[in-house]
Amino acid sequence: MNVNFINPFLASLLNVLETMANMKLTPGKPNLKQDNIAKGDVSGLIGMVGPQTKGSLSITFEAPLILEIMHKMLGEKPQNINEEITDLVGELTNMVTGGAKKLLGEKGYNFEMATPVVVSGKAHTIAHKSDGQKIVMPFSSEFGNAYIEICFER
Amino acid sequence: MNVNFINPFLASLLNVLETMANMKLTPGKPNLKQDNIAKGDVSGLIGMVGPQTKGSLSITFEAPLILEIMHKMLGEKPQNINEEITDLVGELTNMVTGGAKKLLGEKGYNFEMATPVVVSGKAHTIAHKSDGQKIVMPFSSEFGNAYIEICFER
Repeated sequence: MNVNFINPFLASLLNVLETMANMKLTPGKPNLKQDNIAKGDVSGLIGMVGPQTKGSLSITFEAPLILEIMHKMLGEKPQNINEEITDLVGELTNMVTGGAKKLLGEKGYNFEMATPVVVSGKAHTIAHKSDGQKIVMPFSSEFGNAYIEICFER
Repeated sequence: MNVNFINPFLASLLNVLETMANMKLTPGKPNLKQDNIAKGDVSGLIGMVGPQTKGSLSITFEAPLILEIMHKMLGEKPQNINEEITDLVGELTNMVTGGAKKLLGEKGYNFEMATPVVVSGKAHTIAHKSDGQKIVMPFSSEFGNAYIEICFER
């Protein structure tokens, strides 16, 4: 995994949430994922296919955090993960990946995005199955944690 | 959603499981997914990107069924969804999508596959977020149920 691949995704999530929801997350240290420790309640996943590489991205939110993001963006706060929330997670997944795609395209790394899929289920785990290294980027906030995981094939 | 897109995925899952695990599933009637009703315990997801369309696929298994598939393929039967099982689900997702890709390529529909992602979590649900229709294909067996869901953008 080229380290140049990490920062565009990290910067894109921070930018999207600050712009859309006036929400500041604190990024932790990106690390190589050794096991499936990033547990969350709702995740957006998207596939990426390019001439040099292919891979997958997931963004996982703990429920209180995504509910607060919805509250800040739309003024309403559902009690649990409903279809509005999964729609929002799908949109955020598209926006974050699209922002990183633009930044990486400027560096000569190009890929196309598939369409996002959103998984709901209490404390589910995600395993990216490709030959490449898995990078997990943790984010924290007073409302809960989020994780981006990316994996590109060598 | 072109109906020609459905049968290759259905046929590919039946073929992969019969060839690899000597396991016969009974296909139910494919239908348009109205809500997120396909619950399962482990799912493989993969993105697809082509010149005409892009989309996503998921294959969801109930735990007793995937544990029995592992048993038939490898002679061992873990007690729960472990990393061997998620590796197997990732492989099956690649094989089923690859089989359908070959059949669809012969008809002039081409796409590239991203890398698979496997989600574990009791009774999770999956929502494909794209503009296209979502098709769900149910499969049953004495050991439990499986579902393929596919969604392609128009």
